[in-house]
Amino acid sequence: MNQFGKEYRLSIFGESHGQCVGIVVDGCPAGVPLQEHDFLADIQRRKSGAKGTTPRTEEDIPVIRTGVFNGFTTGAPIMIQFENKNTRSHDYLFIKDTPRPGHADYVAMQKFGGFEDYRGGGHFSGRLTLGLVAAGVIAKKIIYPATVQAALIEAGGIQDIDNAVNLAIEKKDSIGGIVQCIATNIPVGLGEPFFDSVEAVISHIVFSIPATKGVEFGSGFAAAKMAGSDHNDKIIDVNGRTATNHAGGINGGITNGNDIVVRVAVKPASSISIPQKTISLRERKVKELVVEGRHDTCIALRFPVVLENAVASVLADFMLMAQKTGRVK
Amino acid sequence: MNQFGKEYRLSIFGESHGQCVGIVVDGCPAGVPLQEHDFLADIQRRKSGAKGTTPRTEEDIPVIRTGVFNGFTTGAPIMIQFENKNTRSHDYLFIKDTPRPGHADYVAMQKFGGFEDYRGGGHFSGRLTLGLVAAGVIAKKIIYPATVQAALIEAGGIQDIDNAVNLAIEKKDSIGGIVQCIATNIPVGLGEPFFDSVEAVISHIVFSIPATKGVEFGSGFAAAKMAGSDHNDKIIDVNGRTATNHAGGINGGITNGNDIVVRVAVKPASSISIPQKTISLRERKVKELVVEGRHDTCIALRFPVVLENAVASVLADFMLMAQKTGRVK
Amino acid sequence: MNQFGKEYRLSIFGESHGQCVGIVVDGCPAGVPLQEHDFLADIQRRKSGAKGTTPRTEEDIPVIRTGVFNGFTTGAPIMIQFENKNTRSHDYLFIKDTPRPGHADYVAMQKFGGFEDYRGGGHFSGRLTLGLVAAGVIAKKIIYPATVQAALIEAGGIQDIDNAVNLAIEKKDSIGGIVQCIATNIPVGLGEPFFDSVEAVISHIVFSIPATKGVEFGSGFAAAKMAGSDHNDKIIDVNGRTATNHAGGINGGITNGNDIVVRVAVKPASSISIPQKTISLRERKVKELVVEGRHDTCIALRFPVVLENAVASVLADFMLMAQKTGRVK
Amino acid sequence: MNQFGKEYRLSIFGESHGQCVGIVVDGCPAGVPLQEHDFLADIQRRKSGAKGTTPRTEEDIPVIRTGVFNGFTTGAPIMIQFENKNTRSHDYLFIKDTPRPGHADYVAMQKFGGFEDYRGGGHFSGRLTLGLVAAGVIAKKIIYPATVQAALIEAGGIQDIDNAVNLAIEKKDSIGGIVQCIATNIPVGLGEPFFDSVEAVISHIVFSIPATKGVEFGSGFAAAKMAGSDHNDKIIDVNGRTATNHAGGINGGITNGNDIVVRVAVKPASSISIPQKTISLRERKVKELVVEGRHDTCIALRFPVVLENAVASVLADFMLMAQKTGRVK
Repeated sequence: MNQFGKEYRLSIFGESHGQCVGIVVDGCPAGVPLQEHDFLADIQRRKSGAKGTTPRTEEDIPVIRTGVFNGFTTGAPIMIQFENKNTRSHDYLFIKDTPRPGHADYVAMQKFGGFEDYRGGGHFSGRLTLGLVAAGVIAKKIIYPATVQAALIEAGGIQDIDNAVNLAIEKKDSIGGIVQCIATNIPVGLGEPFFDSVEAVISHIVFSIPATKGVEFGSGFAAAKMAGSDHNDKIIDVNGRTATNHAGGINGGITNGNDIVVRVAVKPASSISIPQKTISLRERKVKELVVEGRHDTCIALRFPVVLENAVASVLADFMLMAQKTGRVK
Repeated sequence: MNQFGKEYRLSIFGESHGQCVGIVVDGCPAGVPLQEHDFLADIQRRKSGAKGTTPRTEEDIPVIRTGVFNGFTTGAPIMIQFENKNTRSHDYLFIKDTPRPGHADYVAMQKFGGFEDYRGGGHFSGRLTLGLVAAGVIAKKIIYPATVQAALIEAGGIQDIDNAVNLAIEKKDSIGGIVQCIATNIPVGLGEPFFDSVEAVISHIVFSIPATKGVEFGSGFAAAKMAGSDHNDKIIDVNGRTATNHAGGINGGITNGNDIVVRVAVKPASSISIPQKTISLRERKVKELVVEGRHDTCIALRFPVVLENAVASVLADFMLMAQKTGRVK
Repeated sequence: MNQFGKEYRLSIFGESHGQCVGIVVDGCPAGVPLQEHDFLADIQRRKSGAKGTTPRTEEDIPVIRTGVFNGFTTGAPIMIQFENKNTRSHDYLFIKDTPRPGHADYVAMQKFGGFEDYRGGGHFSGRLTLGLVAAGVIAKKIIYPATVQAALIEAGGIQDIDNAVNLAIEKKDSIGGIVQCIATNIPVGLGEPFFDSVEAVISHIVFSIPATKGVEFGSGFAAAKMAGSDHNDKIIDVNGRTATNHAGGINGGITNGNDIVVRVAVKPASSISIPQKTISLRERKVKELVVEGRHDTCIALRFPVVLENAVASVLADFMLMAQKTGRVK
Repeated sequence: MNQFGKEYRLSIFGESHGQCVGIVVDGCPAGVPLQEHDFLADIQRRKSGAKGTTPRTEEDIPVIRTGVFNGFTTGAPIMIQFENKNTRSHDYLFIKDTPRPGHADYVAMQKFGGFEDYRGGGHFSGRLTLGLVAAGVIAKKIIYPATVQAALIEAGGIQDIDNAVNLAIEKKDSIGGIVQCIATNIPVGLGEPFFDSVEAVISHIVFSIPATKGVEFGSGFAAAKMAGSDHNDKIIDVNGRTATNHAGGINGGITNGNDIVVRVAVKPASSISIPQKTISLRERKVKELVVEGRHDTCIALRFPVVLENAVASVLADFMLMAQKTGRVK
């Protein structure tokens, strides 16, 4: 579904090579100062064009179409759209016969019966994340003074990201990476048992970001190798502060006031300039495919700001929810 | 929230030391053969009592209270409950002063203002997963001939699970583990972009299972270290079968017909017999705590059947959804 | 669907002649004092047995199974169940061949393929409203000092209800009625545009109560005959109090602080002792049918407490929602 | 909330005097032929400009921005927008001091703390219904061969609508009316007990249309005056056809294959040229107010196409849902 969130409700739309992409944010409280300029810094961070990212550059100018009046949110839905301009659709016609390995081409064709907009990944494109970033920019204002920050901490298996990217560019290959996001200044008590643990809802939105292969909190997969005596975080004050943070800021699905720590495994982009084998659906035989077009060597480079804003949106959702699940005052 | 699912809708209830735990399943199609006996095998697999699990053994007799008539589901909500019998609540009174490290004691107290049922973890208890198992047993019938199977593949960092458990018992400590779940015979086309990718919804329910620290699909975190030329799964026939399965059966959030592969990091149980340090909320100083009661040395031993049934419930949800999102026939 | 509500979430279950009926209430704040005794007065009001109601009397003893601890709600789901005891299922076997006019027999058979529990209306029975009443009893505590009160104001077309009922009993027929519900002490600002106007959500739950044929607010259908100059309620103070209340306490879908006034048209019960014509599905011809069993002459007599508690549940939902849709403080 | 629907999901946005109004439709199956021209007839029917409607005329040109490719829906969200052009915002500045009787001015100010876009009713404006009409145009294609048709059957209390409107224009007053909508060719079995009866969901969307005061199905409020022996619709064939249709095509909340009949009471528009009394919030005393601007004498004239399309959207939702709630095949 293209809707997400209980209180801070997102409705995403658009295609890579259609007219536009964007989002409707419903449930944003009235009175949040908001103008188009506020989006620019995060949009810039998401942009391609730097080394290791696709040379397709879009202007990505955010237009607030509804929900803001005199510089403040009104409480009505905020619709934000981004025009698509720099599209080269002729690049993608081959997809209908030879679905690209690792992409959604094959499954989209099966699911939507050939009616899907296949150009540039259509509705499956990473370009859709522009809407997520926009939603997160507003969310960050709502959750303040809580803050969220993400960074790429590893690419292609090494921590020297520059070296890893250079090596991959040389090989005309792509590489994956690990992005870490930390949220600080988090109130105790966010999260709604049983099904809406903070981890559950964050992982939900994160796994909707294209290229996500794994999500872990705090100690994550390392916890599987640990003993309880090592893993348990000693509580050291009455505010719930702990000596270590294996829990990643969450116990029983509920924030404990320590930093939320989430790490995401980002796969190498599926589009590479190296020839690959796939099936020709018409000829019913394996064929060599060279994916022309403009590719990201390391899509993980552009991932942090998306992750950060997705997490911020979830935190806004939980904070708007939290006022009412505590005790009756 | 204690509700989950769009078509196959779960509503979970109960506390560890209250009267009962259980679940209401809404949206199950009419005409599925169902009787209480059908639940026994999976409930037995989840049961404690074996080496490495808590000696608290409950009878765990499933009672179908509504939604089944003459041996078949009716299309009305199915309510299944399990009485709690073997409870020793006096074990848990200390929690109100000295919250146990790693547990939800502290956050529950903050969130619910002291009104929470703290006995045995209350609504946060792993005992709630009985309801998930029950829902999954029905789901498995709905998704047939698709099947789901999970197994513990590593405990305490090693693959010889018996050795790992014995060692931990000796040390009076607890250990984590990795559980892998594989779903086979999956139709192409499950999953609903943008937000309800198959990974997103599976991870959502899995992170609501107590003790989950990480979730990965296919290549998972290893993908972050791979090159695209290695990671891309070559498509080898017109049914979308691939030579490798780094995708874990999912492209662009949609099933591609190959096996769905998900791995979960399970943390070591927080309750251990070794003395630990925590804060005394009354005395406002750190204090030593010995958690009496009956503990699981390796909670991951009991995890596979819960994971399996949680995944089955999600697949049932997607299959009931899938009929209508494809092309108009 | 058998789930309702955004913040105050109901999950209803049960059948008329199955083991039990009941409800799970999720989202009730922690700290609300609650015991079984609290339900008795409203359950008594709903009960049958008085003149004009069915002689099937059930004990209707509410059992709180989860979500309450030491006399207070815990914030976890509250499951309340009522055992069915006084059932006479042999009365209903004929339904499979000759569906009763006005009942759901025919549609249930078509929708659920014959697997439905047809006894006493099964899941379509008015007996399900016991769960609604239980949910409303808790809701009334949440919304206090707002209060809700409903009364039967007309039966069989006349205001002297006793006379109308006596006349119908004589004729072995059933009669409809009009029930009015008034909510007072309502804060300004409940209701969530565009789709969740207060009228929209109240009407949603009210039309799920069996026998509802029409719902109107304030001036209701009379408004269609009025001029704007008469209909507009003059605002007479800065708190939004109006001289008249044609709006029924709601403008633009949002409460204005005046009383909410809703009226419901309740149809005559479909089960009557007079012989009726229906189709025999087996013989494919029209046949005379005498519906034996125990019937309500005027089901509207039992409607007020159900309406009242349904409206209270919606108001609780809106109040729990309202804290966060206003301005950022 | 500004989202509605389970399968056919609407997300509405816009303000009367902002940049645009519109809707995102999520869940529309792929392969529905759709172009902008398809919307024109229904948009024309909704338009103002005729006698009895406001002289503000907008071009109301529908622009499909996403979700359609090569003339067919793709399965991705369909975003449709309408620019606002003919606005005269200076007309509305007085609202902040003297809220108009019958309008949402006062409640919006209270709820949104003065941040609401008050111009022309802002997000509360009837102009928002353009989005509903657009959603319904697509829905009508999905539900075909089922059809929906609505008409104004009474205005100002009389059936001669022209006379009623002329009289009101003379008096510079506004009048209400009754609109009837009939859906034919409806399959048996739509509707989802307990809470999503067909009446419940239709009434939900209808009460979100500005100016709705009452909703009734089949016999409606007249049922309250009837006896069961008269009200029960005799079933006359094995397809469930009935001799009368007091049920309005719905039993137990589920369609029975007969026509769905719904009637709506539409109030007189609140904006009239006659001087009215309201409170001055600044001066805290009652004041006379003359609402300048352009008004609808009989807003009910423009209501049928909105009702029709709202009902069609609900039917599309139910039809997309219906495939899976029946028996397992």
